Amino acid sequence: MLFSLGSGKANMDPALINFKVLYVLTQLCGLTMIVLVGTWIGQHFGGLGGTANPKLEFNWHPLFMTIGFIYLYGNSILIYRGFRTTRKKTLKLTHAGIHMAAFILTVIALKTVFDSHNLASPPIPNMYSLHSWLGLSAVIVFSLQYVAGFVAFLAPGLRENYRIAMMPLHIYFGLFGFVLAIASALMGLTEKAIFAITNPAYSTLPPAGVLANVIGVLYVVFGALVVYLATEPSYKRKPIPEDTALLNSSSANE
Amino acid sequence: MLFSLGSGKANMDPALINFKVLYVLTQLCGLTMIVLVGTWIGQHFGGLGGTANPKLEFNWHPLFMTIGFIYLYGNSILIYRGFRTTRKKTLKLTHAGIHMAAFILTVIALKTVFDSHNLASPPIPNMYSLHSWLGLSAVIVFSLQYVAGFVAFLAPGLRENYRIAMMPLHIYFGLFGFVLAIASALMGLTEKAIFAITNPAYSTLPPAGVLANVIGVLYVVFGALVVYLATEPSYKRKPIPEDTALLNSSSANE
Repeated sequence: MLFSLGSGKANMDPALINFKVLYVLTQLCGLTMIVLVGTWIGQHFGGLGGTANPKLEFNWHPLFMTIGFIYLYGNSILIYRGFRTTRKKTLKLTHAGIHMAAFILTVIALKTVFDSHNLASPPIPNMYSLHSWLGLSAVIVFSLQYVAGFVAFLAPGLRENYRIAMMPLHIYFGLFGFVLAIASALMGLTEKAIFAITNPAYSTLPPAGVLANVIGVLYVVFGALVVYLATEPSYKRKPIPEDTALLNSSSANE
Repeated sequence: MLFSLGSGKANMDPALINFKVLYVLTQLCGLTMIVLVGTWIGQHFGGLGGTANPKLEFNWHPLFMTIGFIYLYGNSILIYRGFRTTRKKTLKLTHAGIHMAAFILTVIALKTVFDSHNLASPPIPNMYSLHSWLGLSAVIVFSLQYVAGFVAFLAPGLRENYRIAMMPLHIYFGLFGFVLAIASALMGLTEKAIFAITNPAYSTLPPAGVLANVIGVLYVVFGALVVYLATEPSYKRKPIPEDTALLNSSSANE
């Protein structure tokens, strides 16, 4: 629209309208991605199972990595820009909280893949593939970032000038770990498709193969949207008066 | 060093010293990556060949993709910041030229992989894998970017305000295509390692497997360095007087 609506949103930054549209798209893409991973393992690989059935226990790995290490990780990154009228302190705690939930799901996802290797007969070797090397690197980057971010920005928090100096590195390594997680997921999908889609073979592109590829495309679109929304300067959250207030006053936008 | 040297570089921005160190590291990483891909296909997969030997013809694919679609693509992105005292017009032409060289190598790399599938007996299906879907997407993004960039910024060039509006998208999609190329390369390495490292198997991590993983790690480090050098605000090239001069005057730095 070339003119503003005569409503209460007349003064709204047009960049924020784009942001909202893309933010909703990102959520739809992320939720579709999770549903399709669930469908993939449910329809084609026998669903979920415990330690008694290592093949089915494996299936927790793609599911929890997709929910935790991709969807929640991405959403935690976007929390500041997505909920821009919320107080900064609340956002920081939510950022740390969602990241913690992502970390817990990731650890469970790691446990299930090691189990599925170690409990198989014969056992499958661990940590040999490029997927495992880069995936574990992404988890390590994520963990170090969490500790560094917690110490620097949350409790007790470094001096203002140190925090300002650290922020660009926090953002860079946060996005690096996120993109590395997605690249690792793409390799994981490739491995699973080659190893498990055998009758008919992945190369004949049966439904399980098409679904694997569509999930991979969604990972990329979700990742590209998150990085764009998190880095486009015009979408940056601006400080609100409550950020510096000692007591949380009720916001006009509530 | 906490103090400046009393040399002609006393006024040099300290950020640029970091840039130079990281730029050299990026080149070393990129060249090592190319050498190791050459070693990998030469030592473990029989080296290069023509259409008479589809298996050896395939080996051009990882080699030319690594040189063209990763190393040259990344270096073309960095050309403005790496050669900051060169006139803008010269840099634009070099950027377009290196990208064209990257494109030509990429097209040859695509031709050899299709040949290696079609000429094999029995033929191997094309375009079924996630690697092929995302890899071709990266090539399409790259090609559209080339055309759009050429029209907008080079010949004849859009009006200044359009160019300013397009630049953030040019940068975003340029980096997106580059990262997608690297993610595709990681999936390609994974496929080749699983399919071709069989005796002993990839899962026992023989030398060919370790080399594949090390190449993958170098792709990631190279990509991470290029994106960092291309996006860190303090490394941005500043306009020089020659950029606006009608005739190319000799630079004081020559």
